[in-house]
Amino acid sequence: MIATFTDFGPAGPYLGQVRAALCREAPGIPVVDLFPDLPAFNVRAAAYLLPAYSRYLPSGCVCLCVVDPGVGGERDALAVAADGRWYVGPDNGLLSLVVRRASRVSAYSISWRPELLSDTFHGRDLFAPVCARLACNGTAPGEPVAPAELVMPDWPDDLHEVVYMDGYGNAITGLRAKSLPSTARLQIAGRVCAYHRTFEEAPPGTPFWYANANGLVEIAVAGDSASAALNAVVGQRFDVMHSS
Amino acid sequence: MIATFTDFGPAGPYLGQVRAALCREAPGIPVVDLFPDLPAFNVRAAAYLLPAYSRYLPSGCVCLCVVDPGVGGERDALAVAADGRWYVGPDNGLLSLVVRRASRVSAYSISWRPELLSDTFHGRDLFAPVCARLACNGTAPGEPVAPAELVMPDWPDDLHEVVYMDGYGNAITGLRAKSLPSTARLQIAGRVCAYHRTFEEAPPGTPFWYANANGLVEIAVAGDSASAALNAVVGQRFDVMHSS
Amino acid sequence: MIATFTDFGPAGPYLGQVRAALCREAPGIPVVDLFPDLPAFNVRAAAYLLPAYSRYLPSGCVCLCVVDPGVGGERDALAVAADGRWYVGPDNGLLSLVVRRASRVSAYSISWRPELLSDTFHGRDLFAPVCARLACNGTAPGEPVAPAELVMPDWPDDLHEVVYMDGYGNAITGLRAKSLPSTARLQIAGRVCAYHRTFEEAPPGTPFWYANANGLVEIAVAGDSASAALNAVVGQRFDVMHSS
Repeated sequence: MIATFTDFGPAGPYLGQVRAALCREAPGIPVVDLFPDLPAFNVRAAAYLLPAYSRYLPSGCVCLCVVDPGVGGERDALAVAADGRWYVGPDNGLLSLVVRRASRVSAYSISWRPELLSDTFHGRDLFAPVCARLACNGTAPGEPVAPAELVMPDWPDDLHEVVYMDGYGNAITGLRAKSLPSTARLQIAGRVCAYHRTFEEAPPGTPFWYANANGLVEIAVAGDSASAALNAVVGQRFDVMHSS
Repeated sequence: MIATFTDFGPAGPYLGQVRAALCREAPGIPVVDLFPDLPAFNVRAAAYLLPAYSRYLPSGCVCLCVVDPGVGGERDALAVAADGRWYVGPDNGLLSLVVRRASRVSAYSISWRPELLSDTFHGRDLFAPVCARLACNGTAPGEPVAPAELVMPDWPDDLHEVVYMDGYGNAITGLRAKSLPSTARLQIAGRVCAYHRTFEEAPPGTPFWYANANGLVEIAVAGDSASAALNAVVGQRFDVMHSS
Repeated sequence: MIATFTDFGPAGPYLGQVRAALCREAPGIPVVDLFPDLPAFNVRAAAYLLPAYSRYLPSGCVCLCVVDPGVGGERDALAVAADGRWYVGPDNGLLSLVVRRASRVSAYSISWRPELLSDTFHGRDLFAPVCARLACNGTAPGEPVAPAELVMPDWPDDLHEVVYMDGYGNAITGLRAKSLPSTARLQIAGRVCAYHRTFEEAPPGTPFWYANANGLVEIAVAGDSASAALNAVVGQRFDVMHSS
């Protein structure tokens, strides 16, 4: 299986061209659009979402990861094998949390180049063909590189920020729920959020936090939109208040 | 074939995770996203859309139906066989119009539970694997339950309300077109809409109604958006004026 | 491979029903949604996008092309073979730039009609089954028609207009980049845009133009949205200033 993880958006001509390239180069391999609308150009937010949203993919899955504001510049292209899955994308920090958290990692600098390589769409021209080959025969597409040599920004293990606003208006954060006892409260936009297990259990109209189905802390308002109620946006910070 | 019918939205990480689960559990079975953005949490609107939009699916198709504000609570999970197709989803009224209108119905309460069941994403963890099994081998996933025991809200046979605003700005309603003679007029937002067969035949700029390609009454403005021209929104009511 | 090229939008029930029809009529043939959200009803904008965005599709690919405001009226339905690919859609000018630019063209008027043909959804009822047959066995679906008899609007070879605003806020134009030397500048919304090869090379905050990955001139603002910075919209015209 190949899974796309991109900031292309579900609209527009980008995802379709990548799908066409995958279909041509890896006929018969199923493709799913795992996350089609990561916050545009926001490498850091996507880096925290990637381990959480790829952990449910089957072993052997190849993730095509594109949040790539530096496309056409000097940044390297990577294929990383981490805990049984492949991640292919730019060496700009996008894969750094996956690498940091994995038990087993090997990384490769992609030296192969296609006959025609556009300046601004490596997702279609470079990363998709590399993913196709990995999905078809699992061969590494370049030279091994030590994980320590990858671009590894100095980002915290957990990010106390909103990293994605979903279509229901819920705020997904970069904080792993297992880091937080259910007695903890969050403070965001002047409001205090207690823990509730489900929307059903939360009092309507009151912001609360819960452990989402991918292991991240998510902030929501039962029967309403956290986006509207809290003016929550990607990048917004929150504080954790531990009970004494 | 498996068809998804959800309020997840085409963006975000939900549809992709469901697709990945289906791909893993039902390899080789084609999946189409029939309706990816039902009005969020609006079980009633979706219930009227489901029979209209699933009637063109091939016999044997399995519909994964998720509009599920009560996920993680006490609501039951259902698999319903109706007129040759399967419908899998929460027992919250979402399947009630399909059940009410079908000639042949059998219903099952899904007793199977996966090893890992999240509190808030039964679409991925419970309904997708059940759909996969139904698509692969057609076996019922639980205990038979009498249709009369399902949650069957006291909703009318036809709903004189807007149930979906499409991307062109047209207002899809919960009223079946066969219930309405072409001489009938609709009154909505202070405007009167006559019948025209197509956009081509309607006078530009004038709101009109037509029988849409799924058998529902739809309100549109030729060359314009009914959404903009009538401030039409989901839930908006209209009156039917029969000619005397 | 079948590629959809439509103004349906990624949301709503239209793309899914077309996909279901293709799946039923052409089982096992892969389908990609190449461009799901062409500007609604805008045949001219789509006509300039079609050759640029279909040129990377594999030979033999069948394109289902639907921007069809005259559906249900008198307009003809076409299947056009152009340079090794099939294009199926309404005879309203949508295919005219593909036809005009192709080296080898044969066109067919689709005489076949399905048992059930809705008035307003020929994408599902007529074009999808025709595409399925072409993808399965390549047989022409009707009577040959001379390309000169197709609807060929009097549009220029290159359009100095914005034809699509993408999700990043970039403005895709109807002007082929090979028509323009890199010394040329564009004037749009009172701003002058010089050429830069990539976003990396453009000064942040300054509008510039580049040759996009599909050969069209695209106007962008590095680190920002051209949509916001220039109020760019589909249909907006710009001037080309050649250096002396």
